[in-house]
This record gives sequence, C-alpha cells and structure tokens, in this order.
Amino acid sequence: MHMNETNKPASTGLNVVIEENVTFGKNVTVGHNVVIKEGTIIGDNVTIGDMTVVGKRPSSNRKMARKPPAALPPLVLGTSVTIGCGSVLYRGSTLGEGVFVADLSSIRENVTVDTDSIIGRNVIVENNTRIGKRVTVQTGCYVTADMIIEDEVFIGPCCSSSNDKYMGAGNFSHTGPIIKKGAKIGNNTTMLPAVTIGENAIVGAGAVIVKDVPAGTTVVGNPARQIRP
Amino acid sequence: MHMNETNKPASTGLNVVIEENVTFGKNVTVGHNVVIKEGTIIGDNVTIGDMTVVGKRPSSNRKMARKPPAALPPLVLGTSVTIGCGSVLYRGSTLGEGVFVADLSSIRENVTVDTDSIIGRNVIVENNTRIGKRVTVQTGCYVTADMIIEDEVFIGPCCSSSNDKYMGAGNFSHTGPIIKKGAKIGNNTTMLPAVTIGENAIVGAGAVIVKDVPAGTTVVGNPARQIRP
Amino acid sequence: MHMNETNKPASTGLNVVIEENVTFGKNVTVGHNVVIKEGTIIGDNVTIGDMTVVGKRPSSNRKMARKPPAALPPLVLGTSVTIGCGSVLYRGSTLGEGVFVADLSSIRENVTVDTDSIIGRNVIVENNTRIGKRVTVQTGCYVTADMIIEDEVFIGPCCSSSNDKYMGAGNFSHTGPIIKKGAKIGNNTTMLPAVTIGENAIVGAGAVIVKDVPAGTTVVGNPARQIRP
Repeated sequence: MHMNETNKPASTGLNVVIEENVTFGKNVTVGHNVVIKEGTIIGDNVTIGDMTVVGKRPSSNRKMARKPPAALPPLVLGTSVTIGCGSVLYRGSTLGEGVFVADLSSIRENVTVDTDSIIGRNVIVENNTRIGKRVTVQTGCYVTADMIIEDEVFIGPCCSSSNDKYMGAGNFSHTGPIIKKGAKIGNNTTMLPAVTIGENAIVGAGAVIVKDVPAGTTVVGNPARQIRP
Repeated sequence: MHMNETNKPASTGLNVVIEENVTFGKNVTVGHNVVIKEGTIIGDNVTIGDMTVVGKRPSSNRKMARKPPAALPPLVLGTSVTIGCGSVLYRGSTLGEGVFVADLSSIRENVTVDTDSIIGRNVIVENNTRIGKRVTVQTGCYVTADMIIEDEVFIGPCCSSSNDKYMGAGNFSHTGPIIKKGAKIGNNTTMLPAVTIGENAIVGAGAVIVKDVPAGTTVVGNPARQIRP
Repeated sequence: MHMNETNKPASTGLNVVIEENVTFGKNVTVGHNVVIKEGTIIGDNVTIGDMTVVGKRPSSNRKMARKPPAALPPLVLGTSVTIGCGSVLYRGSTLGEGVFVADLSSIRENVTVDTDSIIGRNVIVENNTRIGKRVTVQTGCYVTADMIIEDEVFIGPCCSSSNDKYMGAGNFSHTGPIIKKGAKIGNNTTMLPAVTIGENAIVGAGAVIVKDVPAGTTVVGNPARQIRP
C-alpha cells in the first residue's frame, strides 16, 4: 500500500467509534455507527458501510480446544477495499487492493484475501484461510479454517466446507479443502475436510465432495461422482 | 399507501441517524441505533428494529461484471411493515402492506415483496426479484437475483437458489428459478438456474432441483425425481 | 447465578443504550453501540460484543399462525457468558454459565442453552428449543423451534433442521428433531421434522435425515442410509 496517512477519514458518519492508533489513508469513507478497533490500518479510498465492526479481537470459552492467539497484528484494509453494512472483520487479517466484502459478513483472524476478490453477503470466513486474486465467494458461503482458495475460483451461493474429520473429538490437526485455480463450485455444495478440487474442475450444485476432484473434470451428486469428461 | 406524511417518527430510539428527505407516515416506530438513508419513504404504522439500515445504495468493485444502476428510486416501506434488528434494506425496492422482515436479513435493490409476506431471519434476497402475496421465506434462505416467487409459496429454512449457469464465466443473461403459486419447498433445497417449480408442487427437504417440477407433483432426492402422484 | 448486582457494567463502550431495570453482575463488559433491552438480567463476568441487541421482544405480522407470547420473563445471561458482535438475543431465554455465542447470531424466546455450550457465528436458533451442556453448534447452523439437543452433541457447520411436516399448511403441532447425547452431525446436513438422532450416532456431511438414526450407527447420503456398524 502506498499510504498517505492521516489521522481521520475524509468522510465520517454519525455515532462512529474510532479507537486508538487507527491509521487512515487518503479519501476514506466511514458510514454511520461504525466501530473501528484499536490499531486498524486502513488504505486509500477505502469505504466502510454503516454498522460494521473492523479489527475485532477473537475470544473463546473454556470448552474450546483451540484458543485464539494472544497477540495478533492489526487488520489491514488495502487500497480501494469496500466493506458493506453490518459486517465483522477481525484483527490479524489482510484484505488486498480492490477487495469487496458485502453486508452481514464476517472474516476471522489470520485470513488473507487477495486483489479484487469478492466476499458476498452473509459469508463467514474462518481463521487461517488464504483466498487468492479475483475469487468470487458468493452469498451465504461458509469458508472453514485452514482452507486454501486459489486465484479465479468461483464459489456459488451457500456452499459449506469443513476441516475437522473427527468432529470435535479432540485436538487433532485440522485441514480445510483446497480449491485450485479456476475451479467452479455450484450452489449449496458440501465439502468434506481436506479434499482437493482440481484446477478448472466444475462441481454441480448440491454436490457432496467426499474425495478429491481431478483437474478439469465435472462432478455431481451425493456422494459426488465424475460425469465429464 | 394512504400516507399522512410527517417529518419524523412517532417514536425514535437513541443514536438514530435519519438522512435527508426521509418521509414518515403516521405512528412509525424506529428502534435504537437505526440508520435511515436519504429519501426513504416509510408508511403508516411501520416498525423498524434496532441496528437496522434502510435505504442503502448498492456498490461494487472493478471485478463485478454487473454494475448496480446509478439511479434508483427510493426504498418504500408500505403500511404496517415490520423490520427486525440488524437488517440491511436497499434503495429501489418496495415492501407491501403488512410485510414482515426478520432480524439479520438483507434485501437488495429493485425487489418487490407483496402484501403480508414473511422474510425470515438471516434471509438474503438479491436484486430484481419479485415475491408475491402471503409468501413465507423461512430462516436462512438465499433468494437469488431475477427470481419470481408467486403468491402463497412456502420456502422452508436454508433453501438456496442460483441464476448463473456459467458460474461467473462472462456476462451472459441470468435467470433465477420461478416458483409458481402455492408450491412448497422443503428445507435446505438446492435450486439450479432457470428451473420452474409448478403450482402446488411439493419439493422434499434436501432435494436438488436440476429441471422443471410439474404442477401438483412431489419430488425428492439429488437429483430430484418425481415420487407422486 | 451468584450475582452481585450493580446498576451498571464495569466497562461500557460508546453509543450504548441500556433500557430500564437491567441488572448487571460484577465485572460485566459491554462493547460499543450495544442495545440492552428492558429487564435483562446479566451475570458476573459477562462480555457483550459491539453492535449486539440483547433482550428483544418477539413480534409478528397478521399472516403468522403462531403469535409470540404476550408476556415473557427476562433474558438471563449466566456467569461468564460471552456474546459476539452484531447478534440479536430475545427476551425469555436463558444462557448458562460459560456459554459462548459468536457474531451475527440470533436466539429467539424460550430457549435454554446450558453450561459451556458454543453457538457459532451466524447461527439462528428458533423459540422453545433446549440445548444441553458442552454442545457445539457450528457456524451457520439453523436450529428450528421445538428442538432438543442433548449434552455433548456436535453439529457441524451449516446444518439445517425443520419442524413443520405440512410446510405452513395450517396450525398443526410442530416437532423439531431430537439429537441425543454425544451424536455428531456433519456439515450441511438436512434434518426433517421429528426425527431422532440416537446417542453417539454419526451423520455424514450432506446427509438428508428422513427417519430416525439408531444410537451408535453411522449414516450418509440422500436419503441417509446406515453404513456402520
């Protein structure tokens, strides 16, 4: 980011809370009733919609096997990032230039979203996930922790992923799905932990992905089976 | 709407933002921390819950093939509309008399929701969609763009629809599903683009609708197959 | 709850609305732009995130067959409860000691969530549901009304349940699923009304549960069929 730091947004709504040590680039627009938490770094031309929280620290209860890290770097919103209304973005993540995050979404800590990618309304992204460039994650998707989504992937609405083969039965290692470059996933698809969806593969709507999908193939059904080529 | 315009709500919470040229009918109740954007038209006896944004303008990033329209008519909330908490309603849409929109929902631009219909919690409705009278869209549904839902349709929780056969692969025309009068859709159903679900058809929970469902029939499964009559 | 009542939180953010007769225990932390409705009872060491509404009264429109009860006891948040940002909790429910409710979630009236259970982000819980101790309801789940979830159940992300066999066709009795102790449900599972999932049963991701699942068995598919033992 080529930042021209200032100590306030170019335009600020009413009832806005800006905590300490927040850095603003040029031409930042902040909506009404927004909360910007301590230390957040906001690039040039960023727009933050009404009622959004940026830079939240993670928390936990005593049942959770995995505690969030005690120290996290600030949330960084790159140049020309747009955030919708009513969203919650955590500290420790970085959104690249031109990223669009729609309303009522949430992105946890240690996530990167690269240039020009779109995170739809009501999408929830867990921690430690990598999302590439020009990716579309459509409305209502759930992106689990420890997941890798490469460049130019398209994920249709309401897709669900998971990363815990043992479903909470202990502190085993977790692995989210890997979606390779250019793959396209139909709406309401279910992905099991650790599956790889190959380059330019196509997954039909409503499929349940229980094993790897080879590059360039098309799969459908529950469990998903290959129908092309 | 038979409006008796006034320039403020009958009851207003704290930390409320009312932008310019908002019109209020009689007996309007506005909760705490609500944002009402410029030009919104609010009918008699409307209730707006805490933390809700009404009249948002759409935005986009440079990756999006479809840019939102530059000019949009105001959002119109008809007589006795009730909006929950934490919702986001866009400019350019119209909610008819008695419509109920629950918490944490969002309705985009150029949508009409007709008399007495119910939009559940966490439901997301995309742009250019028509929802008829006495429709129920239950909690967590995703209603895609360019979709038609006729009168007295019942859509169970968590149903997902889509409108883009090519999954982002260019600027082709999009067509959402058409759900005809009186059809009933079970929970977590997946609808592919451009399918028609006939009058009074019944779709079993978890079905994946890949082709048209004839009127009066019952379908289940992935892909959905007819089991009745 | 061993409460040491005070008349304000130990720490309060900006733009907070506290209505009448709210009771606070010791060491309560309230974020920015929070709304705490009339009569809410908040235990010791509770944390409430930014932009959250606690103690909302239910509402309805004239189409709804079931009207919410006119009178409801207060919402009770037990000792050490943690609530995320942007959530909406209703009056008439009780969260036990150590319960964790993540961001953008909603819990309706007459729900109990027992000790140390976790309600993930974007989870929606309907009214009259009982959730036991040490339960995990992961991100994006929909928990229908009149449902029973026993102790130590694990429900993966994006699971959907329903309670109305007749899909809105009248005022029949509703019964949600019963999930018995220790059962584990994979992500994006669909549960039909009134099914029982037995103790320690395992439901594979993407399954559609149309009938009871015996204790200790594993089921997968649409419709779900037993694959183990």
